[in-house]
Amino acid sequence: MIIVLKPEASEREIDHVLDRLRELGLKSHISTGEERTIIGVIGDDRILQNQPLTAFPGVESVTPILAPWKLVSREFKRDNTVIDIGGVKIGGKKLVIMAGPCAVEKIEVTAGIAHDVKASGAGILRGGAYKPRTSPYSFQGVGREGLDYLLEAKRQTGLPIVSEILDTRDIELFLQKVDIIQIGARNMQNFELLKEVGAYDKPVLLKRGLSSTIKEFLLSAEYIMSRGNRNVILCERGIRTFETQYRNTLDLAAVPSLKELSHLPVIVDPSHATGKWQLVAPMAKAAVAAGADGLLIEVHSNPECALCDGEESIKPTKFKELMHDLKKIAEGVGREI
Amino acid sequence: MIIVLKPEASEREIDHVLDRLRELGLKSHISTGEERTIIGVIGDDRILQNQPLTAFPGVESVTPILAPWKLVSREFKRDNTVIDIGGVKIGGKKLVIMAGPCAVEKIEVTAGIAHDVKASGAGILRGGAYKPRTSPYSFQGVGREGLDYLLEAKRQTGLPIVSEILDTRDIELFLQKVDIIQIGARNMQNFELLKEVGAYDKPVLLKRGLSSTIKEFLLSAEYIMSRGNRNVILCERGIRTFETQYRNTLDLAAVPSLKELSHLPVIVDPSHATGKWQLVAPMAKAAVAAGADGLLIEVHSNPECALCDGEESIKPTKFKELMHDLKKIAEGVGREI
Amino acid sequence: MIIVLKPEASEREIDHVLDRLRELGLKSHISTGEERTIIGVIGDDRILQNQPLTAFPGVESVTPILAPWKLVSREFKRDNTVIDIGGVKIGGKKLVIMAGPCAVEKIEVTAGIAHDVKASGAGILRGGAYKPRTSPYSFQGVGREGLDYLLEAKRQTGLPIVSEILDTRDIELFLQKVDIIQIGARNMQNFELLKEVGAYDKPVLLKRGLSSTIKEFLLSAEYIMSRGNRNVILCERGIRTFETQYRNTLDLAAVPSLKELSHLPVIVDPSHATGKWQLVAPMAKAAVAAGADGLLIEVHSNPECALCDGEESIKPTKFKELMHDLKKIAEGVGREI
Amino acid sequence: MIIVLKPEASEREIDHVLDRLRELGLKSHISTGEERTIIGVIGDDRILQNQPLTAFPGVESVTPILAPWKLVSREFKRDNTVIDIGGVKIGGKKLVIMAGPCAVEKIEVTAGIAHDVKASGAGILRGGAYKPRTSPYSFQGVGREGLDYLLEAKRQTGLPIVSEILDTRDIELFLQKVDIIQIGARNMQNFELLKEVGAYDKPVLLKRGLSSTIKEFLLSAEYIMSRGNRNVILCERGIRTFETQYRNTLDLAAVPSLKELSHLPVIVDPSHATGKWQLVAPMAKAAVAAGADGLLIEVHSNPECALCDGEESIKPTKFKELMHDLKKIAEGVGREI
Repeated sequence: MIIVLKPEASEREIDHVLDRLRELGLKSHISTGEERTIIGVIGDDRILQNQPLTAFPGVESVTPILAPWKLVSREFKRDNTVIDIGGVKIGGKKLVIMAGPCAVEKIEVTAGIAHDVKASGAGILRGGAYKPRTSPYSFQGVGREGLDYLLEAKRQTGLPIVSEILDTRDIELFLQKVDIIQIGARNMQNFELLKEVGAYDKPVLLKRGLSSTIKEFLLSAEYIMSRGNRNVILCERGIRTFETQYRNTLDLAAVPSLKELSHLPVIVDPSHATGKWQLVAPMAKAAVAAGADGLLIEVHSNPECALCDGEESIKPTKFKELMHDLKKIAEGVGREI
Repeated sequence: MIIVLKPEASEREIDHVLDRLRELGLKSHISTGEERTIIGVIGDDRILQNQPLTAFPGVESVTPILAPWKLVSREFKRDNTVIDIGGVKIGGKKLVIMAGPCAVEKIEVTAGIAHDVKASGAGILRGGAYKPRTSPYSFQGVGREGLDYLLEAKRQTGLPIVSEILDTRDIELFLQKVDIIQIGARNMQNFELLKEVGAYDKPVLLKRGLSSTIKEFLLSAEYIMSRGNRNVILCERGIRTFETQYRNTLDLAAVPSLKELSHLPVIVDPSHATGKWQLVAPMAKAAVAAGADGLLIEVHSNPECALCDGEESIKPTKFKELMHDLKKIAEGVGREI
Repeated sequence: MIIVLKPEASEREIDHVLDRLRELGLKSHISTGEERTIIGVIGDDRILQNQPLTAFPGVESVTPILAPWKLVSREFKRDNTVIDIGGVKIGGKKLVIMAGPCAVEKIEVTAGIAHDVKASGAGILRGGAYKPRTSPYSFQGVGREGLDYLLEAKRQTGLPIVSEILDTRDIELFLQKVDIIQIGARNMQNFELLKEVGAYDKPVLLKRGLSSTIKEFLLSAEYIMSRGNRNVILCERGIRTFETQYRNTLDLAAVPSLKELSHLPVIVDPSHATGKWQLVAPMAKAAVAAGADGLLIEVHSNPECALCDGEESIKPTKFKELMHDLKKIAEGVGREI
Repeated sequence: MIIVLKPEASEREIDHVLDRLRELGLKSHISTGEERTIIGVIGDDRILQNQPLTAFPGVESVTPILAPWKLVSREFKRDNTVIDIGGVKIGGKKLVIMAGPCAVEKIEVTAGIAHDVKASGAGILRGGAYKPRTSPYSFQGVGREGLDYLLEAKRQTGLPIVSEILDTRDIELFLQKVDIIQIGARNMQNFELLKEVGAYDKPVLLKRGLSSTIKEFLLSAEYIMSRGNRNVILCERGIRTFETQYRNTLDLAAVPSLKELSHLPVIVDPSHATGKWQLVAPMAKAAVAAGADGLLIEVHSNPECALCDGEESIKPTKFKELMHDLKKIAEGVGREI
């Protein structure tokens, strides 16, 4: 950690800072420049995380040197983490495509879509039973029985299932019924929920928050890992910007950046990122070209009647075409699909 | 709702949309311009909220006309809502100042600060027992007993207390111990928590999310109100932008905008908004000048030792000065303090 | 255009609006709903662009229906615009790669890089003679003679050249010396410069502004086209967001969106967008997969000594590899390189 | 400057960096921590500004310690700069209110508004002769003769005038006719224009760019000052964010921050910031409470007919009321109006 002092900082003020560092068991190093005095702190920066050093008189700014996370980092674990979901591997050479309806509605529709996406090569079935909706007057999901519809679709197709949890009180239910627990963008900093899913080893698909930095995203993954659960999948799904042409701005530079900083698998959700079915295919291709380990795609047999996010769902035929096109892109970056 | 059709939309496509509107019991109105055909939908737009009309072939865009909320709106209730917390009125002519430490630490410190802020004119004591922290390695709050420290401070000073809830499972505890339940920025779209606090009539202080629009903020308040709880206080606390000079960008235009759209009281938190104690006083004054109904301010007797957010806390003497200065600003806009 | 009236709008206020529309020669259409009265205006919305209708009493909001541009739109011209620069075609099936140093420094270095990028398949040489720099103390470019260095490199390699103009007073110089005039992100709304380059038929490479919406970007292109110059190339180069991990956030969804709205060619600059050489290759691949018509890439033989943006430049050997990899991605989306 | 090395950086790589620093005449200081090696560079950071140190192998990140500006800083000049415009002082105890129409249209209208705002206490007349408009089809200003209308209004009222320049080629005209040259938000990084106005001592009103950080804003002011012109007035006018409820987000925390970092006067434009006349008064009051040295306000006698930005203009009667209310706020913060 680097502490920069104000030009007018007095010796007493500087000593006061140094005393505090000593109390914390840290070594420090003073450099007196022409315009500023700088204190370099040697040792584990993380001890300083709870110290409001900028509240000390004479301190101008404090810059951490080390990343604030440990378990999620490439330094902690060099090799890519590969998560095995009943034989489907996430994070390996082969890309994983998770597909299905935004919200689970009826058992026949869900199972039908599951058969379709499986036939086109999807490895995992997605579907929301509980839906976080901006308005209280929007469809809130079918709830508990939605998970049973997914289970029935899994029984018929063999596809493992991923579904979103909204409430810590539902943890037992999700542990029992789904293969991957999804934490949605709006709950990326619902720390109680992160702690809860961190207490088990059930794989967690963690979506990046709407206005979360890469740092905050990795710290939320660290919450889960620090509780013991090592099976975390990161998902980029667009961030909020000033642009209104699409729902969010898909930040694909996050993919190689996350892969460089962390050993965890990184997938991309082009459906929620854009909110427009026309943009799903080009953004899915771009995500694979950027190095994503997989995709999360909304597919619906009848988007006009979808109770949630029909405008961003593609039809099974369109999905089949896309899977075909993705093959060539995957090969172009040394991957398989 | 206005539906704009693509220039190449066929008659069949247009009829398909009209049929759907008829099925939903809505009347429609067609205007055929030179470059576009437009369908105006008469009746309650809110029925259309679950219809993915942009998924229909031939549809270019869909623009809602009515605001998506009801209970929070000025149209629903003309007069300002005034919430009475044991005699302290929020939303009336007199401004309400909520002050106290970011996190509750020890009983003596908490009670000491409570006495100080009361002496300077604060009406409500704030303090966090459970703290939502970006990093799992930061201080997470003292938890349950923190609420008891606040209660003791209340016993000594008579100040009602506000504290933040993080988990639906803690609702009974908060109902029992605090006067106002705070929902923090990171939980503004934790819809299960909103539904939970909506089920009682305990006043709720709802903070605007880091990247929430005014619309989303009001819809979160609508979640609470639609469950029956009419005692909602809105709190502007800065939004996330590209600027890194301060922690967040305090959006004071939100104050008159929210007051125009809604009857609910609006307060401002200049401490979290800026993350710098030097900016708290000017932003507190600006908030009052902009028409806020109150302020939420972090005060700590020893910011250097605060376990959370010491860099944005002001000392009791500074708070006293600020309260003095605010009086003149309040008078300047026809309010009292 | 749709004009929504306030619930309390009086008949006199409504008539006042209707009178104004009549004066402007526009037909209007009134729909009286239960909660709001709406006026639909038929005819060319663009006449209304200079009318501050929201300043009229009783008006709640005004929503335009038609896009505010004409010449840049797909409706105006169905087929892709293909711009021919001395045999190099931009906007056709074959992708165009523009490569070279950020800033032109010495004639030998520039020519050396030109030979290198040509050998790897670049079609156009880029290089800045005049540099827009955030700080007055940063290297400002070698100026006028830099254009001569580029010309010499062109003479040796046959590569057409693109370079950035900063001042309307330099127009003659650029018309004479370069093949494509670049308007940088910071000048995207320097309207006098847009008008100036619009007066000739020299191709213009227009970069999207740091915080420009797709709409504003297309309107800036419309400025150039409305003056007569039809040879405009659009360039996505990252937008400003809250994320600080990379210099800007590359918005690849802009590529298919711009291609849908406009007939103009769209290229991508992954170097400036990310500001990190490690991210250039993955983002270049993603851009091609997203449907870009070409790329603008910084290449420098000795990035450590580059006087400008060395941290985002790749070396010629790296560029060669990238060109090789891009071939497979291009084929995957039905293009050539 | 602090250079952090990668954990795997070799001795040779470290020596390579140290050699370069030595070549540049800088002293360096190595700290070898457990997890990272850090090089502290002593001397003037600004020499390093043109060195792409992150392009060196083994370097992880580079953090500057000193602010990149000099002349604009409080360290360079402790006392507030006060600019005298024919007796009207900007930056002193007394606030300066600049008011007038967005665009100058007719001589009678302009003079009429000038008389009105003078009577209410405005100190300077504003008005645009050349207008930067997003669309080429919007009213572009009356041009050259608009400056003469302003001069006539000045002759009648004695109010000094401020008007916006768009093109370096108009510098002579502006030097001759206006008292303050305005550089608009879209030209804040039109560096050629900054250099041009920097070459004279005519006062310059520099508006913050739509997505400019405080740092970039001060560096643009530094451009002007480094050319010799010391009469720069900074103007906060709202930044671009995701919020669409108002045109821009007025960033009032910029006011005390700029005053802390710089000695230059800071004024606020609540009209362009919000784009809604209803928000002008509350935001004007908030700006004064936050410590602004003045305001820039759009006033029009007939907003419905204003050719530009009528929706954000207030009428002279409303302006008079506002001036009355501002007096009390100004007193509340120890200022006069």
